[in-house]
Amino acid sequence: MPAKRPHVVIIGGGFGGLEAAKSLAKADVDITLIDKTNHHLFQPLLYQVATAGLAAPAIAAPTRSLFRHQANLTTLLAEVLDIQPSDKKVFLSDDTTVVFDHLIVAAGATHSYFGHDEWAAFAPGLKTLEDAFEIRRRVLFAFESAEKEPDPEKRQHWLTLCVIGAGPTGVEMAGAFAEIARQTLVGEFRRINPHDARILLIEGGPRVLQAMPESLSQKALEQLEKLGVEVRLNAIVTGIDATGLEVRGPAPAGVLGTVDYRIASQCVVWAAGVAASPLGGLLAQHTDCQTDRAGRFMVSPDLSVPGFPAISVIGDLALAMSHAPGKSPSAVPGVSPGAKQMGRWAAHNILSRIEGKPTRAFRYADYGNLATIGHNAAVVDLSTPLGPLRFSGRWAWWFWLLAHIYFLIGFRNRLVVLMDWASAYFSFSRNARVVAGTLHKAVPPVGES
Amino acid sequence: MPAKRPHVVIIGGGFGGLEAAKSLAKADVDITLIDKTNHHLFQPLLYQVATAGLAAPAIAAPTRSLFRHQANLTTLLAEVLDIQPSDKKVFLSDDTTVVFDHLIVAAGATHSYFGHDEWAAFAPGLKTLEDAFEIRRRVLFAFESAEKEPDPEKRQHWLTLCVIGAGPTGVEMAGAFAEIARQTLVGEFRRINPHDARILLIEGGPRVLQAMPESLSQKALEQLEKLGVEVRLNAIVTGIDATGLEVRGPAPAGVLGTVDYRIASQCVVWAAGVAASPLGGLLAQHTDCQTDRAGRFMVSPDLSVPGFPAISVIGDLALAMSHAPGKSPSAVPGVSPGAKQMGRWAAHNILSRIEGKPTRAFRYADYGNLATIGHNAAVVDLSTPLGPLRFSGRWAWWFWLLAHIYFLIGFRNRLVVLMDWASAYFSFSRNARVVAGTLHKAVPPVGES
Repeated sequence: MPAKRPHVVIIGGGFGGLEAAKSLAKADVDITLIDKTNHHLFQPLLYQVATAGLAAPAIAAPTRSLFRHQANLTTLLAEVLDIQPSDKKVFLSDDTTVVFDHLIVAAGATHSYFGHDEWAAFAPGLKTLEDAFEIRRRVLFAFESAEKEPDPEKRQHWLTLCVIGAGPTGVEMAGAFAEIARQTLVGEFRRINPHDARILLIEGGPRVLQAMPESLSQKALEQLEKLGVEVRLNAIVTGIDATGLEVRGPAPAGVLGTVDYRIASQCVVWAAGVAASPLGGLLAQHTDCQTDRAGRFMVSPDLSVPGFPAISVIGDLALAMSHAPGKSPSAVPGVSPGAKQMGRWAAHNILSRIEGKPTRAFRYADYGNLATIGHNAAVVDLSTPLGPLRFSGRWAWWFWLLAHIYFLIGFRNRLVVLMDWASAYFSFSRNARVVAGTLHKAVPPVGES
Repeated sequence: MPAKRPHVVIIGGGFGGLEAAKSLAKADVDITLIDKTNHHLFQPLLYQVATAGLAAPAIAAPTRSLFRHQANLTTLLAEVLDIQPSDKKVFLSDDTTVVFDHLIVAAGATHSYFGHDEWAAFAPGLKTLEDAFEIRRRVLFAFESAEKEPDPEKRQHWLTLCVIGAGPTGVEMAGAFAEIARQTLVGEFRRINPHDARILLIEGGPRVLQAMPESLSQKALEQLEKLGVEVRLNAIVTGIDATGLEVRGPAPAGVLGTVDYRIASQCVVWAAGVAASPLGGLLAQHTDCQTDRAGRFMVSPDLSVPGFPAISVIGDLALAMSHAPGKSPSAVPGVSPGAKQMGRWAAHNILSRIEGKPTRAFRYADYGNLATIGHNAAVVDLSTPLGPLRFSGRWAWWFWLLAHIYFLIGFRNRLVVLMDWASAYFSFSRNARVVAGTLHKAVPPVGES
C-alpha cells in the first residue's frame, strides 16, 4: 500500500492562495482549497464593477474551474470558523472538520471602520462583489433620486458623492464617480444636470496615494482635480449617518487651526481602513502569537507561524517582512504581487519541509506601484535595475490598462474587459449600469415590473 | 403662451411600455416613463443569467440610457402604488403624485404559486435579475454541497434538480441544468460526478410546451430526454418544502390511476404559474372592471379601460383580444411580440384621441412561436403566408439564436452575447458562473475571504 500523500490545506482563493495552489500542481501532495465564495476575484478591478464599468463575471472566475486540470486539488466551498493548530484541524461552518499536514492561511482582509462599525450601514466598503453591487446601486440611485427631488437643497444632497480615504481604491472610485457625472450620464436626465454633482475625496493624511512617492501624489491630485474631484486633505471623518458626514479639517485659507463641519450627502463610500480576517486573531490566540493593530498575523521570516512550522500565513492576513541579503528587513506591502509571491514562497517551503530541507526566509521582489484615476489619468512608479521610473497621465493610464488586462485570469475575461474598455474609452459609456432589485429594497414589490 | 402639451404616463419599462414610449418619440406630447428597476430586461434570455451562461448587463440596458435622445421623455425610477382613474393620478412610493392626461399601464406579471405563497422560499420563480441570481446560486451551490456531503443518499438529494412547469421557461431551464451537469462541470469535482445529477421536469398537463402544436411538443420532449432530462407529464405538485416536493402523478407502467410520491431535492425552480401585477386588480377595483383568474385586466377592443378611455392596459397585465376582420376575436398570447404590438397600438390610439379621431380595435400579428431546449435543440413554429412552417433540432436552434440576438437591445450587448455563445457553443463552458456572497447567507462573515 502506498504511503498517504501529505495533505496541504489552503484557506482562501485570493491571489495568495491561488498562487500557492498552482505552485504545488506537480508536487506529490493532496491539496484542499477552501474558499467561502465560488470565485477568484480580480480585486484590482473590483472598483470597475462598483462604478458600473464591468459586469461581475468579467473579473471573477469560478475557482473550481481554474483548477479543473489540477488533479491533486479539491475545491471546497465553505467558511472556516476556526483552526486548531495542535491537532492540525480546520473547522468548517457546515460542521465538518478537515485535517491537514500543512496549512496555508490566506484569508485576506476586509474593511475596518476603526471601531465605528455603525458607519458600515451608511458608507459601504469595497471588498466583495456584494459590496460592489451595493455601491453601484447607491451611486446610480443617487442620480435617480435627485431627478425626482423637487427641493433644490435636498437635490444637491443626492448629488453630493463622498469617498473616504485616498488610497488606490478611493482615488479610483472618486475618479470613476466624476466620469459618471461628467461624461456617462450627460443628456440622460431632464430635471437635473448630472454635471452639477460634487465628488468629494476625503483623506486624513496630507496627500493622496501615500504609498507613492510625493511627486506622483501631486500628479494624482492634479489629475483628480482636473476630473472635477474636490480633494480634502488632512480631513478626519468624525461621524457618518444616513444624511451625511462630520469632518474635522483645515480651516479656510487665511485662518489657522481646524474646523468641524458637516457634508450633507446620501452616497458615501468607505475606502479608508483595512482589517485582516478574524481568522488571524483566532490563530494568534491558539498559538500565543501576535497580530498588529490591523489584525495582521506576525509571521516568522519563512512565513510560518512561530512554533507551528506546519502552518503558514500569507497575503493581506500576514504582517510579513522581506529579508533581502545585506539589507535590513522591510515590511511587505499589502498588494497583489506581495500576496502572489508569498503564495509561491510558502508552497516551496512546504516542499522543503516534506523533503527535510531547511526553509528560506521570504524575500519580496518589488516591481513598483501603479494607480489609475480615470480616462488617460494614472500614475506609475516602477522599480527598475536603473532606478525608479516614474510617469503619469496618458502613458501611465495605458500602462496600467495593459498590465491589468494581462494579469486578468482567463483569456475570455481579458477579451471581454478589453472590449468593454475599448467601447468605454471612445464613448464614455459604462456597460454595466444595471442594478438588480428596486429602489425600495425593504418594500414588498407592488406596481410595475 | 403655448398650450400645455398632453402628458402621457407609461407605467413599466418592459417590452410593451418601451415600445409605446418609442412610438411617441415624434409626437407632440410629454412622456413620463415610470419603472421600479433602472433597466429594461430582455426577459427571453433571463434563463441564461439564471443558468450562468450570461452576465446580467448582457441582457439588461439602463432604461434612461435607451431614451437619452428622446427629448420628450422623462424616466422615473419609482414604484407605482396605486392609480386614481377619475382624478387621472398615479401615486408613487416616494409620496409623490404624477398627473396624466393619458396613461398606459404596462406593469407586467410575476410568478404565481396558485395560493401556495409559502412555496416561494423553496422554489424561486424567474421574473427579475434578482430571481435569476438566486436560481444561479441554488443550482451551482447544489453541486458544491454535494461535493462536501459524505452521506451518499443526501448527496443524491443535492444532485436532484427539479423544474416545475414545462412552458418555455421551464423547458429552457431544465435543458440548461442538464447541460451544466453533463457538460459544463465535467472534470471539476473530485468526490462527485456531476453526470450523476438527475434533472426532473414536472408538468401538470399532458405535454411540454402546450402553446406549441402537438408535433413540436413531441419533438421537444425527445430533445429533452436526449439531454438527460426526466420529464414527468400529468404530474401535479401538491407540496414543496426545504427538502423536496410532493407529487401526484400517473402510476408506474401497467398500473392504473395515480400515485402520490415524494422527490427529495434541494434545488427546485418554479416555472409553472404567472400572475399579473397587483396594479391590475387595483385598477379593476377603482373602475368597476374585471380581471381574470391570473389577475389580468380585461380591456376594451382598443386596449383601453372600459369607461376610462384615457387609460390603456397592455402586455402581460392585459387580457386582450385580437380583432381581425372577418374572424372571431382571439386571445393575444402573453409573449413579447404581443406586448410590443400592444404598446405601439395603444400609443397610436392615444394620438388618435388627441386628434379627435376614433380609436382602432387591436389586431395581433402572429408570426409564430419558438422555444429552445439546449445546444442544437429547439423547436420553431412560424406563421407564414403559405401556412405554418415547423422545424426542430439544429436548424431551429440557430434560428432561435439569431432571432434572439437580433432582438436584443443595443449593439454592444448583441456582440457580447454572441461572443459568449460562440465560446459556449464550442466549449460548453458557461461564462457567468459567479455567485456574489457566500454559502451561508445568514451567517455573519467569519473566515477566509
